[in-house]
Amino acid sequence: MKIGIVGGTGDIGEGMALRLSPKYDVIVGSREEAKAIATCDACRETLHGQGLECSLLGVTNQRAVDEGDIVVLAIPFRHVAPTLKTLTGFEDKIVVSPVNPIERTTHFYYAPPPEGSAAMMIKGMLPASATVCAAFNNVAANKWKMLDEELDYSVAVCCDDDGVKQKVMDLVNTVSSLRAYDAGPLAVASIVESVTPLLLNIARFNRMRDVGIKFV
Amino acid sequence: MKIGIVGGTGDIGEGMALRLSPKYDVIVGSREEAKAIATCDACRETLHGQGLECSLLGVTNQRAVDEGDIVVLAIPFRHVAPTLKTLTGFEDKIVVSPVNPIERTTHFYYAPPPEGSAAMMIKGMLPASATVCAAFNNVAANKWKMLDEELDYSVAVCCDDDGVKQKVMDLVNTVSSLRAYDAGPLAVASIVESVTPLLLNIARFNRMRDVGIKFV
Repeated sequence: MKIGIVGGTGDIGEGMALRLSPKYDVIVGSREEAKAIATCDACRETLHGQGLECSLLGVTNQRAVDEGDIVVLAIPFRHVAPTLKTLTGFEDKIVVSPVNPIERTTHFYYAPPPEGSAAMMIKGMLPASATVCAAFNNVAANKWKMLDEELDYSVAVCCDDDGVKQKVMDLVNTVSSLRAYDAGPLAVASIVESVTPLLLNIARFNRMRDVGIKFV
Repeated sequence: MKIGIVGGTGDIGEGMALRLSPKYDVIVGSREEAKAIATCDACRETLHGQGLECSLLGVTNQRAVDEGDIVVLAIPFRHVAPTLKTLTGFEDKIVVSPVNPIERTTHFYYAPPPEGSAAMMIKGMLPASATVCAAFNNVAANKWKMLDEELDYSVAVCCDDDGVKQKVMDLVNTVSSLRAYDAGPLAVASIVESVTPLLLNIARFNRMRDVGIKFV
């Protein structure tokens, strides 16, 4: 299975590439192909240093879409709409959104678009044959890249297609100690996305780091 | 410290009375005083059966407000506004809201009032000298009454007054294995409240029971 990562040179994108490429063919996309290639080189070196083989290819964001069976949008919310406007070829793709629309004053808060959530906005921007799935939203961003750190979190997955949802849940369950949970249809992705500013506030006000969540 | 429970004969209210009355003076309120007295008798019997002393008084909701230093609104969201309209005397009280505005179709979703959250609506209905604090929102309702069950969950607490917030966090930390976390100002109580329909969906779609949350 090929996983394309749009925004694969950002923190979460690179972390995902590190965590996924020993098990899957990972196509790392970037606005600048050279950056994607450099990220892949760095990831390969890190993984080889740990005695791990990997399958990584650095390309443009467009090619990450074209080649991925699953396409992960590992980009900040403010870049999502502009980026999607430059890309085509999402027909029949599984599109994973770990995107959280968050703003900050003295605290973090959830600031969704008019569609109700980043996931619903993304769905509205893609062809009807693409299936959007919210996942990985609440995994602490910094932890992705720390390969020595176990990702021992719960992951809520929202999607309107049960087959696709199961496929993404299976993917989640292969990453470190992440455990996937069916959190319902895409319409409630807003709740999942809004957990992230809650976790950021918990970290901020309780002097903690990289706070994650577990359903118990 | 006296804790008044408005709606103390409901599931959560009665569970709170059971969990809190061995440590605090608990004033159980109900629309019908006789029901509150009956609930207190039942709680007392349960607790004595476990060799526990307790301090319980069954009264009207109004007296639970009057006598409580902390007043917990243990009522369903749809009853909150009508109930508050019948009650007075909230001046200078600490008012704890575990209330979650939730609706259900094929799944559960967050359905806040125009104020943004139950907590903010409650704040708007009370005198300015009352301090509203969102807490206990995500504790599985059924678990409160099962005294044999450890409540091993995280509790996000939102409040605009740091002193009051600390007082409520201290209270939370005395209940079973609950652990309180400062989740920021009352303005973000919406996020905390919305976690509850997420947990209900997780339970529903993954065939789990009484799902709670832990910040890790």
